[in-house]
Amino acid sequence: MIDRIAEIADLVTVALDELLPRADGPEARLTEAMRYAALGPGKRLRPFFAIEAARLFDIDERAVLRAACALECVHAYSLVHDDLPCMDDDDVRRGRPTLHRAYDEATAVLAGDALQTAAFDILLDEDTHEDAAVRCELARRLSYASGARGMAGGQMIDLLGVRDDLGGVARMQRLKTGALFTYAFEIPLIIADADEAQGNALISFAHDIGLAYQIVDDLLDVEGDAGELGKAAGGKDAARGKTNFVTLLGVDAARHRVAHLADQARAHLDPFGHDAEILKASVDFVLRRRS
Amino acid sequence: MIDRIAEIADLVTVALDELLPRADGPEARLTEAMRYAALGPGKRLRPFFAIEAARLFDIDERAVLRAACALECVHAYSLVHDDLPCMDDDDVRRGRPTLHRAYDEATAVLAGDALQTAAFDILLDEDTHEDAAVRCELARRLSYASGARGMAGGQMIDLLGVRDDLGGVARMQRLKTGALFTYAFEIPLIIADADEAQGNALISFAHDIGLAYQIVDDLLDVEGDAGELGKAAGGKDAARGKTNFVTLLGVDAARHRVAHLADQARAHLDPFGHDAEILKASVDFVLRRRS
Repeated sequence: MIDRIAEIADLVTVALDELLPRADGPEARLTEAMRYAALGPGKRLRPFFAIEAARLFDIDERAVLRAACALECVHAYSLVHDDLPCMDDDDVRRGRPTLHRAYDEATAVLAGDALQTAAFDILLDEDTHEDAAVRCELARRLSYASGARGMAGGQMIDLLGVRDDLGGVARMQRLKTGALFTYAFEIPLIIADADEAQGNALISFAHDIGLAYQIVDDLLDVEGDAGELGKAAGGKDAARGKTNFVTLLGVDAARHRVAHLADQARAHLDPFGHDAEILKASVDFVLRRRS
Repeated sequence: MIDRIAEIADLVTVALDELLPRADGPEARLTEAMRYAALGPGKRLRPFFAIEAARLFDIDERAVLRAACALECVHAYSLVHDDLPCMDDDDVRRGRPTLHRAYDEATAVLAGDALQTAAFDILLDEDTHEDAAVRCELARRLSYASGARGMAGGQMIDLLGVRDDLGGVARMQRLKTGALFTYAFEIPLIIADADEAQGNALISFAHDIGLAYQIVDDLLDVEGDAGELGKAAGGKDAARGKTNFVTLLGVDAARHRVAHLADQARAHLDPFGHDAEILKASVDFVLRRRS
């Protein structure tokens, strides 16, 4: 499993390196900053899910890879902006200085902006898919998942800290991190023009794994070792007065919920039979992460 | 002329109000901030050019209006991020507090991000045009105009201040402000599937008017009255050690160049005959602005 994830991560990094814009003029500082953010070490988990789920269908691998790269660009942009001093003010990300520490704040704002733009540029290019309707749908779903009613809306809720109960925390998670997880599975569904049953199965899997992943993140925030995490840890949310799944549920109940979600996620894949073995096997691996 | 520009500005503001996302939850702060930035007073000059140029062709007005709104979203997002403390650090825009002063920096970063996303969301929606190939091309050209090889690249060059000669200043202008001006004219060209001669004429017009507009902006920076401008003025570029067209050319030569570009811009429209009267008449009006 670890080989398969690493293999896809490499595939995505190589493709991203080719797809991201280059520049010769002084604006090369911007394209270099975009590369620093997007090509640095990372699990490429969302692309992994998109590419692995695509194996359930008989579809063009290149289209899936390009869409997975676009998704990773949006994820990278969100990390760059979330790390800014006016947001979470983080100095370390993936074991390296955050972009605004390695470069400067203005470059980080711009590089995040241009990474978002690059995502749409990649998706809308004719090389992604011969059918313009498919390209449009891929881009439209990404805009929905990342905008005010998705990721950006979730980050707003996170910043406001308005979430006293589990419902509030769950809603924030669904927008802030869940929407992009779901998009990873929408990529093959759109390209394959999959039927409703297949769509429901994969989207349900996405919801469960996305939620479980966030709870694990909150567990790591409490228990994690900053060195292994590659970012600040040690009850950061609690120190900032923010509630999360672990501060509300407690460690034991949170762990129990992760296990329950993992079982439920795997069960959603039953209709795909043997074809979904790797995806099922990935669940525990993804949730047993230490960083 | 002033009536026609005001009429289109109203049309665009009403359409934008309808197209921008709304939210009921705590993320409503984000959608409100997006509205503050996009719906506030503004000339809507880029939408004016898109809509006025569209009258040269027999095309669906709604498609043009929606694309013009998407363009205005990108323009608004760029102003919000350019005004941030880490960028130009401006407190006033269009006579009101800039977004990060009216709200806060984090909300301003997020609202800019989500305004960019909203632009693609608007363009890619089926309501924009029945033909997915047209929607794709509208969105793809916008991503090109606003990304690292367009507006964001230009802003990077501006931040670095690397422009000792006219060539450098002109290149920055072409990317930072020229690309979106050009996109305004690409909107009708794409929707009308216009021929090459028509395309060349309108794009040449866009280049000349975009450049002239920037020189006027630099003249206002030196000569303008902050009250009328609705933003800081009084040689702001010079005070920041930045060169611009006026610091390099001098006021008289800069004015002369604006007049020359205006003549040249109008001449590009000759092939359209009488149909281009309003567009031609708009040149002097646009360039005679006081703010």
